[in-house]
Amino acid sequence: MTSLDEILSMLGAIIPPLGVESVVLDQGLGRVLREPVVASEDQPPFACSAMDGFAVRLDDQSSEFRTVDFLRAGDWRPRSLALGEAVRISTGAALPGDGLQIIMIEDAEISGDRVRILRRDAVRHVRERGENARRGDTLLAPPRRLSAGALALLASLGVPRLSVTRRPRIVHIATGNEIVAPGRTPLPGQIRDSNSTLVRAFLAARGLPVIQHRAPEDFATTRALLTDPAQGAPAADLLLISGGASVGGHDFTRRLLAELGCEILVAKVASRPGKPLIVARRGVAVAFGLPGNPLAHFVCLHLFVQAALGTLAGLPGETPFFQEGVLAGALDNAGAGRETLWPARQSIAGGAPVLEPLRWSSSGDLTPLARANALIRVPGGARELARGARVPFVSTTPPA
Amino acid sequence: MTSLDEILSMLGAIIPPLGVESVVLDQGLGRVLREPVVASEDQPPFACSAMDGFAVRLDDQSSEFRTVDFLRAGDWRPRSLALGEAVRISTGAALPGDGLQIIMIEDAEISGDRVRILRRDAVRHVRERGENARRGDTLLAPPRRLSAGALALLASLGVPRLSVTRRPRIVHIATGNEIVAPGRTPLPGQIRDSNSTLVRAFLAARGLPVIQHRAPEDFATTRALLTDPAQGAPAADLLLISGGASVGGHDFTRRLLAELGCEILVAKVASRPGKPLIVARRGVAVAFGLPGNPLAHFVCLHLFVQAALGTLAGLPGETPFFQEGVLAGALDNAGAGRETLWPARQSIAGGAPVLEPLRWSSSGDLTPLARANALIRVPGGARELARGARVPFVSTTPPA
Repeated sequence: MTSLDEILSMLGAIIPPLGVESVVLDQGLGRVLREPVVASEDQPPFACSAMDGFAVRLDDQSSEFRTVDFLRAGDWRPRSLALGEAVRISTGAALPGDGLQIIMIEDAEISGDRVRILRRDAVRHVRERGENARRGDTLLAPPRRLSAGALALLASLGVPRLSVTRRPRIVHIATGNEIVAPGRTPLPGQIRDSNSTLVRAFLAARGLPVIQHRAPEDFATTRALLTDPAQGAPAADLLLISGGASVGGHDFTRRLLAELGCEILVAKVASRPGKPLIVARRGVAVAFGLPGNPLAHFVCLHLFVQAALGTLAGLPGETPFFQEGVLAGALDNAGAGRETLWPARQSIAGGAPVLEPLRWSSSGDLTPLARANALIRVPGGARELARGARVPFVSTTPPA
Repeated sequence: MTSLDEILSMLGAIIPPLGVESVVLDQGLGRVLREPVVASEDQPPFACSAMDGFAVRLDDQSSEFRTVDFLRAGDWRPRSLALGEAVRISTGAALPGDGLQIIMIEDAEISGDRVRILRRDAVRHVRERGENARRGDTLLAPPRRLSAGALALLASLGVPRLSVTRRPRIVHIATGNEIVAPGRTPLPGQIRDSNSTLVRAFLAARGLPVIQHRAPEDFATTRALLTDPAQGAPAADLLLISGGASVGGHDFTRRLLAELGCEILVAKVASRPGKPLIVARRGVAVAFGLPGNPLAHFVCLHLFVQAALGTLAGLPGETPFFQEGVLAGALDNAGAGRETLWPARQSIAGGAPVLEPLRWSSSGDLTPLARANALIRVPGGARELARGARVPFVSTTPPA
């Protein structure tokens, strides 16, 4: 049995990041940047007005000026100003020259081409060339997951393509004699396969496609599936096997992975639900044997597979981390000797995270997943945690 | 000038939710469920074993049993057990009948079809039919944004299609004489249009497509664009106009919206950056005039447009909310009289949110967007906030 913390830190250490590929800017959202991006020119590239108003010489203390031009954003008409001359200027428009100050339009009285200054601020109301960044400055340092804001910055720099971590090739096999496709009516004793939907949506929420198979818990069949290049698994960077329960799913998956040449790193996790977790690797590929019970499956995906995805993407720091919140209701952990990851609904109240523990009756119970967006970490042996107790929790929403 | 809080609460109140549409389960991720989902059968639908072991009669205190069947998950072979009879059973397999207990395989000694019981737990190790939910119980109550976990629950129920809020039709127009497409080299005085990339990626991160145009700041041209059904704006549920700065972008957008028959609800927000924000409506459609300066644009999108998206989706409670964090460094707000939304990098340290305030020099400064994932709310008149100060902040990551 390996502890949750040991598995998370192992997953941060054993997996090298995947290689890079070049994508166009619009494909960069949510991807991990792997090269530094430097400013190819000063930001802003020219001194411009921060206000609508009049540009006059700093050394010109006249109170009345003659307007000699009107510069709108986008215009470029450099000129020298003589004493007594002003240029009307819009926010964002390039200044006509150096040594100027902007007088706000609210502080001026206009009459034809004459303008009288009512008030003159101490500040220049100028955005200086290079005040945001100098040519050659590093504006984005790798590795960095790209947000909408980061893409806007890259667009402003005219960066056409980006070096980002390539997406992992992911293959998932749901095994079990008791599972049928969700669209089918189960026979007595059978249940619908919800784990395939869970894995597909968990990955889709992180922008990742997956090749999926559903197979009976038969060693030869599953082994053939996993070794057939046409089915994707041999080339997978990440292989997920959801164990069935039919003939002892855990041993089935472990034997299968061992036979495929995987090194078994973890055979059991010391927390619940999810005890029969397997972590294995073959070369630089990672494989998980995920417990078939849906709630255990949910916990293992959002903790361990999430950690592996961060590391594969080149962001080991994205390993799920625990923060502290307050219990909105009592949590009855009757008799659980092992550490428990308890499904919860997290919200914010009074500025702080608040956690409503959700009812669940077994690791096969999917009903808390209707509302779960967090997992509370309940120490082994803890019986009842009172309302108002401070508890560590991890969010199950995708990193962004 | 309208306060930030007033605008957020107005956006929660003035916009009715959009109508519903039916989508297949796999299209439901991130969508907002608008109908209750009830269990069509008990969950689990049959009593099953929670362990690998042997099923024996509760009233049978024998220490040795004869194995009469082996039930694996997926099997369905009801039978009555006589005293002294046991059925070998796998986790998840349907029990052969009522009144039974499971003895864990670890507590049994097997010899051919004979099994000797070494230890008998007080608990039955049975998952009862209906222990998670009863037929007719509401398992998902609307409105609810659908996570991967919720979809797994729906798959387990065999729900093929869902009633969800239809996606808003969104049209965005970036106006300005100074902006050029990011792929072009700006002439002197021009800059690249980063706001179109920002809007597109902001919406893509929320699963929403957008029709986009770029137009010079010319009244007739923009008006023609906005009234042409072929360009999308007349049918838009949400219209976003990024103001240029060329000829006083704010008045330009306000006049345009007024002429289109929009009621102007907000003409200025009392916080920075983003003062020249316009909120308007026409019928049930909402329009925003967003300040052209990129940092102001970023702030207005993540606060006000985000609030409108939540309300349109039928989740007014998804309005951006502030939580409390600790400043990781001093924040120098020199001389800002107005409330400020300050770009920041939020992380978790010691279980609590920590905020690194990012350097920015003006509302035109995009460089903090490389790392910003939060906005700190700095009260008007505050000069320097010290490292370690507790501050309210809002996350800029998409709701999930």
